[in-house]
Amino acid sequence: MTTITGFEVHDVRFPTAAVGDGSDSINRGDYSATYVELATDEGVTGTGFTFTNGQGNEITCDSVRAMAPLLLGRSVTDLTAEPPRLLTAHPQLRWIGPEKGAIHMATGALVNAVWDARAKVAGKPMWQLLAELPTAELLSCVDFRHIDDALTPDEAAAILDKGRVGLEDRLAVLRSDGFPSYTTSVGWLGYPDDKVRALTRQAYAEGWRAMKMKVGGPIEDDVRRAGIIRSEIGPDALLMMDANQIWGVGEAIAAMARLAEFDPYWIEEPTHPDDVLGHARIQRAVSPIRVATGEVAANRVVFKQLLQAEAIGVMQIDACRVAGIPEVLAELLLAAKFGVPVCPHAGGVGLCELVQHLAIFDYLRVGTSLDGRMIEYVDHLHEHFTDPVRTRDGRYLVPEQPGYSSDLRPASIAEFSFPGGPAWN
Amino acid sequence: MTTITGFEVHDVRFPTAAVGDGSDSINRGDYSATYVELATDEGVTGTGFTFTNGQGNEITCDSVRAMAPLLLGRSVTDLTAEPPRLLTAHPQLRWIGPEKGAIHMATGALVNAVWDARAKVAGKPMWQLLAELPTAELLSCVDFRHIDDALTPDEAAAILDKGRVGLEDRLAVLRSDGFPSYTTSVGWLGYPDDKVRALTRQAYAEGWRAMKMKVGGPIEDDVRRAGIIRSEIGPDALLMMDANQIWGVGEAIAAMARLAEFDPYWIEEPTHPDDVLGHARIQRAVSPIRVATGEVAANRVVFKQLLQAEAIGVMQIDACRVAGIPEVLAELLLAAKFGVPVCPHAGGVGLCELVQHLAIFDYLRVGTSLDGRMIEYVDHLHEHFTDPVRTRDGRYLVPEQPGYSSDLRPASIAEFSFPGGPAWN
Repeated sequence: MTTITGFEVHDVRFPTAAVGDGSDSINRGDYSATYVELATDEGVTGTGFTFTNGQGNEITCDSVRAMAPLLLGRSVTDLTAEPPRLLTAHPQLRWIGPEKGAIHMATGALVNAVWDARAKVAGKPMWQLLAELPTAELLSCVDFRHIDDALTPDEAAAILDKGRVGLEDRLAVLRSDGFPSYTTSVGWLGYPDDKVRALTRQAYAEGWRAMKMKVGGPIEDDVRRAGIIRSEIGPDALLMMDANQIWGVGEAIAAMARLAEFDPYWIEEPTHPDDVLGHARIQRAVSPIRVATGEVAANRVVFKQLLQAEAIGVMQIDACRVAGIPEVLAELLLAAKFGVPVCPHAGGVGLCELVQHLAIFDYLRVGTSLDGRMIEYVDHLHEHFTDPVRTRDGRYLVPEQPGYSSDLRPASIAEFSFPGGPAWN
Repeated sequence: MTTITGFEVHDVRFPTAAVGDGSDSINRGDYSATYVELATDEGVTGTGFTFTNGQGNEITCDSVRAMAPLLLGRSVTDLTAEPPRLLTAHPQLRWIGPEKGAIHMATGALVNAVWDARAKVAGKPMWQLLAELPTAELLSCVDFRHIDDALTPDEAAAILDKGRVGLEDRLAVLRSDGFPSYTTSVGWLGYPDDKVRALTRQAYAEGWRAMKMKVGGPIEDDVRRAGIIRSEIGPDALLMMDANQIWGVGEAIAAMARLAEFDPYWIEEPTHPDDVLGHARIQRAVSPIRVATGEVAANRVVFKQLLQAEAIGVMQIDACRVAGIPEVLAELLLAAKFGVPVCPHAGGVGLCELVQHLAIFDYLRVGTSLDGRMIEYVDHLHEHFTDPVRTRDGRYLVPEQPGYSSDLRPASIAEFSFPGGPAWN
């Protein structure tokens, strides 16, 4: 029995906006983390965070402070053996969601911190803890309410049972080759053309064969930048495009008609993230280009509908916008049921560190294929983590330290704490 | 030119949970308001609020404090002449929505406060200010991005232009008869059977011919309580049911098959508020019973889809969960385009006070019909407002004071401020 005895919340912000990193058609962010440390009676510290874009991080920090007391005195074993309704279905707090926005992101930070503590106590990296859990134990934390019209507990159990077959072989593949990946570091909207060309050339030289650019500026700019990247990477490498929600449905279809000549593999976030029917209409219009979305999908109910409506060809889960491991597990199971590949959203602060565990677990036990699977990679801020991602030739290497790779270095927390840290003075 | 010069935020909570008021299958709330006062250089104070359920009100208060500085130094005229993207599309804050949860509710409080200031300066109640505005001026504040696939600006203009015809006649009807209404005060889940029967009898005697009960407890309890109410109100009065999101899709269909014998007029919030496709499936299964939802619909994009999918027979807007007057205007226009009647959500703290203006404006200028229209009425907490709603024979009387009827009495703010007010000591 490991019991939660205390918590500490840190508002950590990195001044990324000034240099154009992370700039797109919608966001100009100072990449930030609402970072929580859960103390336990066994000395293990569970850490979790939700990523934000700068301003607003104080609100998600406040939300964590409002919810964290609900965990005090509870055991990690009990908390991970049930859906996190203690937080998601709180009879008062849920009103300011429900299951969305600041309160749900705070839930993600807290639930992931609890699971991080469990993995550390078990002495296993998160992917391994999850991959080895009995099916019934994995499913005990999943909230099937509101998704059981698309996925029943029995169907989920069948997927996870089947996933045990060949698991060791798949793990051997990962340990040998790493997990496929793509890079988003080449084409931020804030970068001038020559920087885009130089970064693309460099990434290609480093082994990347899949790259993502931001679109949604003036269409002629998008066309010109797509031409630069495609000319650098040749016809065989994959080029993904990301509109970050800027377009209306009709606009998205028109823009992709212009950009189709550059053979995009997917168009990401073509319109408002809540617009399931809009995504479905876009997917029908732009096929065979895939529609991809999910990094700000509020919860499993939105993913359920994107799958039911055949609105996406690629599902992009986020590790900490939803209610942590249990809700991501529901999402992975839904994707497997509908046969849609999962390519996790990463970048930001520490998202690469988290989603590598999820993608590996998905391959080992749920989706059981690498076909069409790639983890996003962005080369920012890894140095602030004690167990940073490692890549080789455009692939993620399997993380081996216990936990969820979510521990920030104490020196980084101190340096970038907002507003008091030296970086902000 | 009226310029915003300052703001003050109050965390106001009423201890309603202890007596069972407002209890349903999901919520046990202390009805609360995140209340903001905007000071102006002309002495007028614009007030706005968002309603919450108790805990979490500190988070929406923090969100208002984070966003209010963006309004300082801006003129009320300018702010009401454009969509509130200053708040809804902020390049950093939007990440913790977008357009949903705490940040969007805070936006609603602030935008409504700006519009309240405008109505007060004009010396008109909000319904009148809106009803008399030229079409172009009304539309200048609407954000058509992400809804123009369902409603173009031209279509919206045609609706508002047509709404000028016969407006004076419709106003005369309202001044004579009031606005149709229904009461939710009879059937909270926290009330014992004899209290439900007594309240139903009393409401019927007071002239109410439409009443709403909460469902979603054990089905036998729902059946018994529905029988009590139906036996008291006879076959002709309307009985609405509200499940407050508790059911899955299949559960909702099964429960309504049991409850259909009591001839419900609508089933409200049968499942998760984000589940457009689920509502559509339920609507097909329970017809001719209408599906109603919207009180926690995150934004206009969700309403757009509910209408596109033919998922609802009644659209329930909320005055302050979305981005205030401009977003509600978009929602009313969408409903008119699709021919679905709007029955606003009310109750809580001050929601009746706000939505009466919206329903009247809808009748005068947008929907232009009373057919199937009713404002929810809950007999709680009106005494804390300086311009409380007035009802007669189960109908709302037209409010006549300038503004949005959103001013709380200073003594009530002081008494119920959380945690320092005398009510909480």
